[in-house]
Amino acid sequence: MPVTRTVKDYIRTIVDFPHEGIMFRDVTTLFADPRGFRMAIDQMLHPYAGLRIDKVVGLEARGFILGGAIAHQLSLGFVPIRKKGKLPGAVISEEYQLEYGEAIVEIHDDAIQPGEKVLLVDDLLATGGTAEAGIKLVERLGGEIMGCAFVIDLPELGGRARLEKMGMDVHALCAFEGA
Amino acid sequence: MPVTRTVKDYIRTIVDFPHEGIMFRDVTTLFADPRGFRMAIDQMLHPYAGLRIDKVVGLEARGFILGGAIAHQLSLGFVPIRKKGKLPGAVISEEYQLEYGEAIVEIHDDAIQPGEKVLLVDDLLATGGTAEAGIKLVERLGGEIMGCAFVIDLPELGGRARLEKMGMDVHALCAFEGA
Repeated sequence: MPVTRTVKDYIRTIVDFPHEGIMFRDVTTLFADPRGFRMAIDQMLHPYAGLRIDKVVGLEARGFILGGAIAHQLSLGFVPIRKKGKLPGAVISEEYQLEYGEAIVEIHDDAIQPGEKVLLVDDLLATGGTAEAGIKLVERLGGEIMGCAFVIDLPELGGRARLEKMGMDVHALCAFEGA
Repeated sequence: MPVTRTVKDYIRTIVDFPHEGIMFRDVTTLFADPRGFRMAIDQMLHPYAGLRIDKVVGLEARGFILGGAIAHQLSLGFVPIRKKGKLPGAVISEEYQLEYGEAIVEIHDDAIQPGEKVLLVDDLLATGGTAEAGIKLVERLGGEIMGCAFVIDLPELGGRARLEKMGMDVHALCAFEGA
């Protein structure tokens, strides 16, 4: 009897990328497969069926692929959160910590209206630093985060605990042990 | 009688971004509007109705938003073409000219199978340099480009003519005069 592959089965692991000691979980093999990509998008939406959502916000860059698909499926608008200097209009910014140094993410200051209900999406939840910065940007514009949806959770890196401590509803399609 | 807004009406122009003298056509206002985004994705697909397409390829980064939505609507896989160093697996590369200097784009070397029929998508067709590099990458892997779909054409910059000279079928939802 054929066994149906799960979302996790489509994810490839690349050893030592971007540097030695990292097991990089590569979602491009999931996205490139028609069954895998379809399953991933559909399953990411299941927890939010029946909820009012006004906008989908995706984190650069793999969150754009997911967020575009999800916004289209729900007939909603899509808003990008980008690295510093990429958005052409007036923005607000948040700084967050990386392993070495800091990074800055930005959102257009008119991209979310006060009271709008937002679904935040990205491919990977690791330490949660980027997601936390994204949540803060949406909330500073008056948006309400209805959920944070990821393909992969790396629970040992503490991102889920960090976002749940902020009161977030966090869903991921699968988890990998180790960083 | 209310007038239906077109895709072009949702696009915002930012003067002097990223540098003086550029009229930057900003699709984020199109993507953020539920009617605008829905119209854009649906209309980008109209020329390809009834054609066999196997994969959607999107150019980093705004092409990811469109390509994710289009791949999902068609229940196809999505393949990203990214700037140098971003893809974790084995890649092939193409260099292309920018206004000042060169840039390199990459695709995973196993992302397209020989004979697969590909739709290439991006937000903007300007000089066509990035699109040409993307087409070459797909063709080097044995893929066949069925069409190149854009939201915006800037005809004065010659991108359409350049791609059509390569034998490409080029569609854009709207055009702006001037660079």
